[in-house]
Amino acid sequence: MTDERSPHLELGVCDYPEHVPQDRWAVYAQQQKALGLTYVRIAEFAWALMEPANEQYDWGWLDQAIETIAAEGLQVVLCTPTAAPPAWLVQQHPEILPHDARGQVRTFGSRRHYDTASRVFRGYSRRITRAMAERYGQHPAVIGWQTDNEFGWGDTARTFTPAATEAFRTWLEERYGTLDQLNEAWGNVFWSMDYTAWDQILPPNRLVADANPSHVLDFQRFCSDLTVSFQEEQVTILRELSPGRWVTHNFMGFFGGFDHYRASACLDFASWDSYPTGTLESIHEWGPGGDALALAYARTGHPDFTAFNHDLYRGMTGKPIWVMEQQCGQVNWAPYNPLPADGAVQLWTAQAWAHGADVVSYFRWRAATMAQEVMHSGLLRHDETPDRGYTEVQALSLDAFPLGDIPARVALLHDYESLWLYDVQRHAAGLSYWAQVMAYYSALRRLGQDVDILHPDSDLSGYAVIVAPALTVMTPERAAHLEQAAEHAQLVFGPRSGYRTVSGRTPEDGQPGAALARLQGVRLLNFDSLRPGLEVPVAGEDGAPFLASSWAESYRLEGAQARYRYGPGPQAGQAAVTEQGAVTVIGAHSDGLIQAVLQAVLQRAGVPVEPLPEGVRVSRRAGRTLLQNWSQTEVHLEGTVLPPTSFTLR
Amino acid sequence: MTDERSPHLELGVCDYPEHVPQDRWAVYAQQQKALGLTYVRIAEFAWALMEPANEQYDWGWLDQAIETIAAEGLQVVLCTPTAAPPAWLVQQHPEILPHDARGQVRTFGSRRHYDTASRVFRGYSRRITRAMAERYGQHPAVIGWQTDNEFGWGDTARTFTPAATEAFRTWLEERYGTLDQLNEAWGNVFWSMDYTAWDQILPPNRLVADANPSHVLDFQRFCSDLTVSFQEEQVTILRELSPGRWVTHNFMGFFGGFDHYRASACLDFASWDSYPTGTLESIHEWGPGGDALALAYARTGHPDFTAFNHDLYRGMTGKPIWVMEQQCGQVNWAPYNPLPADGAVQLWTAQAWAHGADVVSYFRWRAATMAQEVMHSGLLRHDETPDRGYTEVQALSLDAFPLGDIPARVALLHDYESLWLYDVQRHAAGLSYWAQVMAYYSALRRLGQDVDILHPDSDLSGYAVIVAPALTVMTPERAAHLEQAAEHAQLVFGPRSGYRTVSGRTPEDGQPGAALARLQGVRLLNFDSLRPGLEVPVAGEDGAPFLASSWAESYRLEGAQARYRYGPGPQAGQAAVTEQGAVTVIGAHSDGLIQAVLQAVLQRAGVPVEPLPEGVRVSRRAGRTLLQNWSQTEVHLEGTVLPPTSFTLR
Amino acid sequence: MTDERSPHLELGVCDYPEHVPQDRWAVYAQQQKALGLTYVRIAEFAWALMEPANEQYDWGWLDQAIETIAAEGLQVVLCTPTAAPPAWLVQQHPEILPHDARGQVRTFGSRRHYDTASRVFRGYSRRITRAMAERYGQHPAVIGWQTDNEFGWGDTARTFTPAATEAFRTWLEERYGTLDQLNEAWGNVFWSMDYTAWDQILPPNRLVADANPSHVLDFQRFCSDLTVSFQEEQVTILRELSPGRWVTHNFMGFFGGFDHYRASACLDFASWDSYPTGTLESIHEWGPGGDALALAYARTGHPDFTAFNHDLYRGMTGKPIWVMEQQCGQVNWAPYNPLPADGAVQLWTAQAWAHGADVVSYFRWRAATMAQEVMHSGLLRHDETPDRGYTEVQALSLDAFPLGDIPARVALLHDYESLWLYDVQRHAAGLSYWAQVMAYYSALRRLGQDVDILHPDSDLSGYAVIVAPALTVMTPERAAHLEQAAEHAQLVFGPRSGYRTVSGRTPEDGQPGAALARLQGVRLLNFDSLRPGLEVPVAGEDGAPFLASSWAESYRLEGAQARYRYGPGPQAGQAAVTEQGAVTVIGAHSDGLIQAVLQAVLQRAGVPVEPLPEGVRVSRRAGRTLLQNWSQTEVHLEGTVLPPTSFTLR
Repeated sequence: MTDERSPHLELGVCDYPEHVPQDRWAVYAQQQKALGLTYVRIAEFAWALMEPANEQYDWGWLDQAIETIAAEGLQVVLCTPTAAPPAWLVQQHPEILPHDARGQVRTFGSRRHYDTASRVFRGYSRRITRAMAERYGQHPAVIGWQTDNEFGWGDTARTFTPAATEAFRTWLEERYGTLDQLNEAWGNVFWSMDYTAWDQILPPNRLVADANPSHVLDFQRFCSDLTVSFQEEQVTILRELSPGRWVTHNFMGFFGGFDHYRASACLDFASWDSYPTGTLESIHEWGPGGDALALAYARTGHPDFTAFNHDLYRGMTGKPIWVMEQQCGQVNWAPYNPLPADGAVQLWTAQAWAHGADVVSYFRWRAATMAQEVMHSGLLRHDETPDRGYTEVQALSLDAFPLGDIPARVALLHDYESLWLYDVQRHAAGLSYWAQVMAYYSALRRLGQDVDILHPDSDLSGYAVIVAPALTVMTPERAAHLEQAAEHAQLVFGPRSGYRTVSGRTPEDGQPGAALARLQGVRLLNFDSLRPGLEVPVAGEDGAPFLASSWAESYRLEGAQARYRYGPGPQAGQAAVTEQGAVTVIGAHSDGLIQAVLQAVLQRAGVPVEPLPEGVRVSRRAGRTLLQNWSQTEVHLEGTVLPPTSFTLR
Repeated sequence: MTDERSPHLELGVCDYPEHVPQDRWAVYAQQQKALGLTYVRIAEFAWALMEPANEQYDWGWLDQAIETIAAEGLQVVLCTPTAAPPAWLVQQHPEILPHDARGQVRTFGSRRHYDTASRVFRGYSRRITRAMAERYGQHPAVIGWQTDNEFGWGDTARTFTPAATEAFRTWLEERYGTLDQLNEAWGNVFWSMDYTAWDQILPPNRLVADANPSHVLDFQRFCSDLTVSFQEEQVTILRELSPGRWVTHNFMGFFGGFDHYRASACLDFASWDSYPTGTLESIHEWGPGGDALALAYARTGHPDFTAFNHDLYRGMTGKPIWVMEQQCGQVNWAPYNPLPADGAVQLWTAQAWAHGADVVSYFRWRAATMAQEVMHSGLLRHDETPDRGYTEVQALSLDAFPLGDIPARVALLHDYESLWLYDVQRHAAGLSYWAQVMAYYSALRRLGQDVDILHPDSDLSGYAVIVAPALTVMTPERAAHLEQAAEHAQLVFGPRSGYRTVSGRTPEDGQPGAALARLQGVRLLNFDSLRPGLEVPVAGEDGAPFLASSWAESYRLEGAQARYRYGPGPQAGQAAVTEQGAVTVIGAHSDGLIQAVLQAVLQRAGVPVEPLPEGVRVSRRAGRTLLQNWSQTEVHLEGTVLPPTSFTLR
Repeated sequence: MTDERSPHLELGVCDYPEHVPQDRWAVYAQQQKALGLTYVRIAEFAWALMEPANEQYDWGWLDQAIETIAAEGLQVVLCTPTAAPPAWLVQQHPEILPHDARGQVRTFGSRRHYDTASRVFRGYSRRITRAMAERYGQHPAVIGWQTDNEFGWGDTARTFTPAATEAFRTWLEERYGTLDQLNEAWGNVFWSMDYTAWDQILPPNRLVADANPSHVLDFQRFCSDLTVSFQEEQVTILRELSPGRWVTHNFMGFFGGFDHYRASACLDFASWDSYPTGTLESIHEWGPGGDALALAYARTGHPDFTAFNHDLYRGMTGKPIWVMEQQCGQVNWAPYNPLPADGAVQLWTAQAWAHGADVVSYFRWRAATMAQEVMHSGLLRHDETPDRGYTEVQALSLDAFPLGDIPARVALLHDYESLWLYDVQRHAAGLSYWAQVMAYYSALRRLGQDVDILHPDSDLSGYAVIVAPALTVMTPERAAHLEQAAEHAQLVFGPRSGYRTVSGRTPEDGQPGAALARLQGVRLLNFDSLRPGLEVPVAGEDGAPFLASSWAESYRLEGAQARYRYGPGPQAGQAAVTEQGAVTVIGAHSDGLIQAVLQAVLQRAGVPVEPLPEGVRVSRRAGRTLLQNWSQTEVHLEGTVLPPTSFTLR
């Protein structure tokens, strides 16, 4: 895609010509060009302007907007506008509205007020996509497409409409063939939940109490497939009518509403929207450190939360990503929305590049003077003066950021089905799938590792170390695939590995099931769920014990050796960390323990390890090394002085 | 009104003859007279007794009740009973029931189960009002009327019924004329929210995510207007049939569900219901001090929370108020309902007088022996023995509290539209409109100031200092009005001044818009939203810096001078407090800073300043000075010893 | 019942043959026998297997399951399977589904998805009960029956369906005869809530604000009666068709959704499901100690929470109980689900015996490999290896636990109607009915007392001390009954005694009403509701004062003497604890005060008192004394060393 055009990082911006008077368009385009931007993303929510009434199109303004941008030599990223269905469409077809988990209709007035299961809406989605693609698909300034916007935003990934209920039954019939198969797969015998007719099946909402997790898992898969196929319909049209242009989607960080691997399969590359301070405010409750961390990194976000998503989305297609929306000032949607620290926009941009972004596109050009996001910043203030982020962007030297490969020797395995099953039955309220995965990712980053995040069933060759923090769902095929990987790499498993079959039951022969048990050399004994303050010591052969919190599971050794064992408590003396050949299993949740074990594994694999101070991270790309300090204090590292919120490139 | 009748504070009580056997009526009236009361408010929720079936009236009991009270020389305040529609009416017209924000109907069984938008209910409201007024409007013992009861109680200020939806569309059509005007005013282009037909418009509830704040603002205005017109219909009838009697309404403290200025326009004076300990329990979370303050003032409430509402409601019509319901023991509706401290009832009564109450009417005579408020106290206990408050009332010397003027030299500006826009997008979760306003009010009170609270568009002449803590909504007319005021007074603005236009957008030329910018001599640079623990230093030319929390905004100087600037952080070196002529702008939220700046401004204006110790407040009326100690510790002040929960009058 | 069969404690297990392949059945039965179990409870949720389609029964599998169990000499407890209505029934009769408090239907997919008010469902309930009873009622291996499962689980005790609304009206008409009587009983005059037609009456949900507590009380009574009669229908059939077998129900701990006394009236004895760690996690918020206690007892639960329920359910019929489901490993339904401490299963079993259990039946045999409870443990792990609890059960010597009487000299009075009225108007958010009752129960247990928990109207002869911690509802008859009891026993009342009449009003002559006032020698003066941190000193004639928290009420002495009085504060000098003859009234909530007063009363009654260290408890049965240490530290007591989580029998 971008390889031919530039040897280094490029920049873009999200702009909304329809939000400002037309006399500003040329001025903005000139300013954007002068700032060193290459791309302008437009038309994201502009359906009502393009099609102000049913089948009555008004392209004049968009023609003009594209021409104005193109006239400056900028390139245009167009969006299908389906995230914001117009009022006339909702009025004519109220059945396209989504229903919430209580079964209540959600109305027009914000965005994403559509049901992915609605055949009616899909028809309109295809029609507006086709209309746009026919008009602009081959426009020389149009370089590529974004489908819709942030699938799943506003809790819309799951759908509870009558249309969805119907489609869910069909989906299940296709998956299972017979009700007997479905009843067996879900274990419906448990509470007399066996179905005797397909139309007895409902979404797993509005129940008296908790639903069968297998029911939830398949409903989640079904909803995920709806998002996937909804997007595919648009991509098919864009491929046909806009040849030579790429297609992407702007995903959200830490969003598990659908399987992003499946959603990315039809894209040229994945993009995501990076809001480091907003993300920190929203997720610090499940992240390490809680309020203290949220305070310490209030003005930059935490480096690992952002880097994780870069690596995650790079792994979707294995190709460089776009940051389609990059925070360049304060956001408006978190409980608190502080100003970023001086230097934060450069810090974020450099990190994005180092973790695989070929393009960073700032959100947004000028702060909106109306509606929901009026308190959100842009590169320009409301009064059109350059805001703080503008100045930082202006000062970037793009040729310092050459494109190229990331020399990751570590792969981290991630799987949305494991996420769904893990989170529907956390068992220890304070620990989620993302939190467990992040504990391993952060440990690797603290050890100076570049990390590829991959689906467990993907090609794992070429890595020295493979880490599977929370592969709850295991199949014999997956176990065999991992066994193969262990022939050439060190393999590390976290707790709850192999707890569940593909249909959400436990293996009949106990966790982690025969195939994985053979690979790991262990069988699960017990798992302990620890409330805040309840901690369990875990000791190796020497050194002070670590304290496990939230989770601690133990193993019966069937070939493996125990490297760490539990101290006093219900699992006293039982194996907490085991090793069999190249395979290590970590059963206790402890940042220190995870880091110590990973460090030993990395060293065994011959991978250089570089423990880093708090807030400092290293990343490598295209032969260059980026050293960043995300903390608010000066750090001295091997002769280098890193001021707060700063980076150096070597 | 009351001027002719008494030269000093008078007392009343809320009584419910229908709650007790008839043989108690005369006994109570004698006791009330003996206690020194002048007024008895009755018939507040007695619709079902007056009209036990449709158009079948039973006045006998009420005739008798009024006669019994009148026989003792007491005067009667009558209430329209519309806050409690009878069961037969609901059964006959279920369409009068309100719907909650989820669209669910709310049923009979408590009170306020009516929809202000219901034409049907309005008919019944007018009918019962007319029937009462015809019967009692000219009764010599009837001195005045209270409309309904506590408009908006029980989250009923906003209405989401089909009738309300219809009426909202009509209201919008009247306001905007065309959909183009409405779409432009709201900035509906933002997310393709443009309407192409009036009946596409819905209330801003049940959306996928946040609504357009302009949509919320107009819906709030519309709902407010419904309350206003609902009351006006009753007042018109009372004016016609009960000449020479006053009409008031008993508002609630810190309630922002409707525009109380507009609701007060048709009243003779405003009243409110003062429950200092209940209010403290309910609102301490947004007030300064949080739990610690709630604990310190658990048995009296906080002086400023109560005084603010006295001043607020006095400012509605500019006339003395009634405290229509004055807590005289413990309440029943807060999470905790402690006994008031010894002396608290006298403390509250004295403060009410000093802040403009001509009458204080205690709630209620005897504690109810049935239903929802059985745990609420009265002047008499359930067993008819005098409760603690009774004894305190008995000991009051009313001639110590002469009626007369309050010599306020400071005006504080307050506006419900600013409240609505501020709170719908707080941006910093911990700071609300009321909290920001209270920070300024409390600082003035700590400095010994008497304060008039006024609508920003009202007559501002005669004040030495005018403080506008949070005037979010600004128009050119309002700015011009304030500019005029600045010719004769010092003018102080708090943060977020002029952030929004009358339709909820930001000024196209940036905040605070040209007109206010000219007056202030500044333009907004940035605003910072600070999570708990994140603080920003603000320093003047000398002295230790203050620490801003929650909010910090900075300015570009366009004529003004910076008096305080930010220390290290994203706004380092930027102006935090500015001054241009008589106009001061405070951009940082800090109790200490606000007090320091206000003190300097007051001194510049020649207003005497008297910093007071914690919990001590001074108030002046009719030439007398009331010094109160609301704390639970003894205070020594200029030779005076103030025991806990006590006051002295000079 | 069990008396003839065994001189000592027996054990059982809950098993679900339908959850495992048939080839495991005989293996499990042999293992169960070998482990020393006597009883196997089966068929609890197996309706869909017994009647896979309407009126098509399949008994083959259950015949076989029973035969397999019987073949090992084990005895079978059968359950009516009505807690899990099959999908075909719901599809055919969707009107049997329950509605939640918002009026929304709750759907199929979990359990208890039925409306106790549904006549249609009751028909099916009787039919399946009859069918089971006809087939197995006289099977020699079937020893008894459990009705349904955990009535009220999943918030199903209250029902808000149209059918329930209809039935509620009928119930009220039967109770009150006329609407005038009802209006008077409820005090509907309060807010014009008088009804003029029966069909105006609705359940007290979906109101604008709080409902009339009398309305809530009667609705609670009505719902309770529905559960009672629903069960009675099943019991009648079982009595007819399964002569000589007992019938019980497995109640839940601390559940107040219905009157368990009335529900137990038709049973042979009461059973309950004991989950000590799960209960602790769920209720520590209202229990003494909060998070600190939840942490200290995370691996055993708190001794008093569990013992209370044993004593409570023993008191239902006055006969020994079954623990029908005894936790034997970790549970899955609390926020945190830690592993029990080593020894906990023995600790719980021994305590259950000492508090009146003749049988302890573990839940469950093998951990489920499917569906909602896949993370719940059993005696066997998923992989069929013995789990930790199995080993503990194996090591039990059952003849150490002889059956026999509990020599309780103290009775504690408990009443569900008082619970309902107390909790609907707590007045001090942090104190609930259960919490207040537990404060007295725990104090008695800390003093080494065995306690019978009884309904206040039951036979109270034979006790030395009778404690009524929270008898909110008082009638003249009840007061007379207590007066009789005071002739031969010391009587202790806690706060809020006699606050309410049988219809939920207060006595017209003030609390606690004439009859109880005469017995106590006091009248209520004031009650104080104390937020956390607000404490009131209470002092006796000597010794340091105690600090009351949450609640403090005072009395006017009318014959009684004050033993403790309040220190400084609104009730300074007033009586806090009074004594008149054998009757003591405690008005202040303080663990220390309660213990001190109870100790004095016990001593006065000649009952030996044995204050115990933290976590240590003593219980007596059949001439033996059980001394337990539930703490995690070793305790030395009178020469005995008690390791953590241990017991000794003397």
